[in-house]
Amino acid sequence: MVGPVKLVIAVRRDLDMGKGKIAAQVAHASVSCALTAQRTDKKIFKEWISGGQKKIVIKVDGEDQLRQLIGMAREQGIITEPINDAGFTQVFPGTLTCAGIGPAEESVLEPLTGKYPLL
Amino acid sequence: MVGPVKLVIAVRRDLDMGKGKIAAQVAHASVSCALTAQRTDKKIFKEWISGGQKKIVIKVDGEDQLRQLIGMAREQGIITEPINDAGFTQVFPGTLTCAGIGPAEESVLEPLTGKYPLL
Repeated sequence: MVGPVKLVIAVRRDLDMGKGKIAAQVAHASVSCALTAQRTDKKIFKEWISGGQKKIVIKVDGEDQLRQLIGMAREQGIITEPINDAGFTQVFPGTLTCAGIGPAEESVLEPLTGKYPLL
Repeated sequence: MVGPVKLVIAVRRDLDMGKGKIAAQVAHASVSCALTAQRTDKKIFKEWISGGQKKIVIKVDGEDQLRQLIGMAREQGIITEPINDAGFTQVFPGTLTCAGIGPAEESVLEPLTGKYPLL
């Protein structure tokens, strides 16, 4: 039995990214998380898709906070997909811009990501 | 032989969506397009993934323009994934917010989407 499942995408607020850029980065993280779930945890994947691909986009202060969040999620075995931008526009090549965390059960994600504000 | 492949996501500029909302809608379209390509056109899907999931986010004036774009893409057999928001926040339930068009070869997409500005 799997509870409600969602995907959280944490975006750095300290980078000067426009809304189109942010959308592309968040989409990249989401596709990567979806494909990883499909490969490694079919139950969670199916639940997430059938529930309408629930997504929450949150903001973190910067790279340190994002890396900390990724580390904590990994320790708990949650799918994490950090996105390093190719850097053709707006940010330097290789910049960590955001990370997808999940899909996973909301009850597992909430303690990790619940304190961050929505983007 | 497949040329460079990309995914275009067209977003309505006439809706009053914040950047987090836009990012979630674009991510929804991207995941849907990726999974459809994976199921229906493995060659394009693989090329798109191995090329780094290239994405372009463009803006259209409103619903009419978006529907017209979707219709033209469908006529050409390009994957299209219109996103109708559940409408819990910021827009009315069922609102068409954006559409994923592709992944497809850039040479096929360009005549359809090339005239629209980046978001």
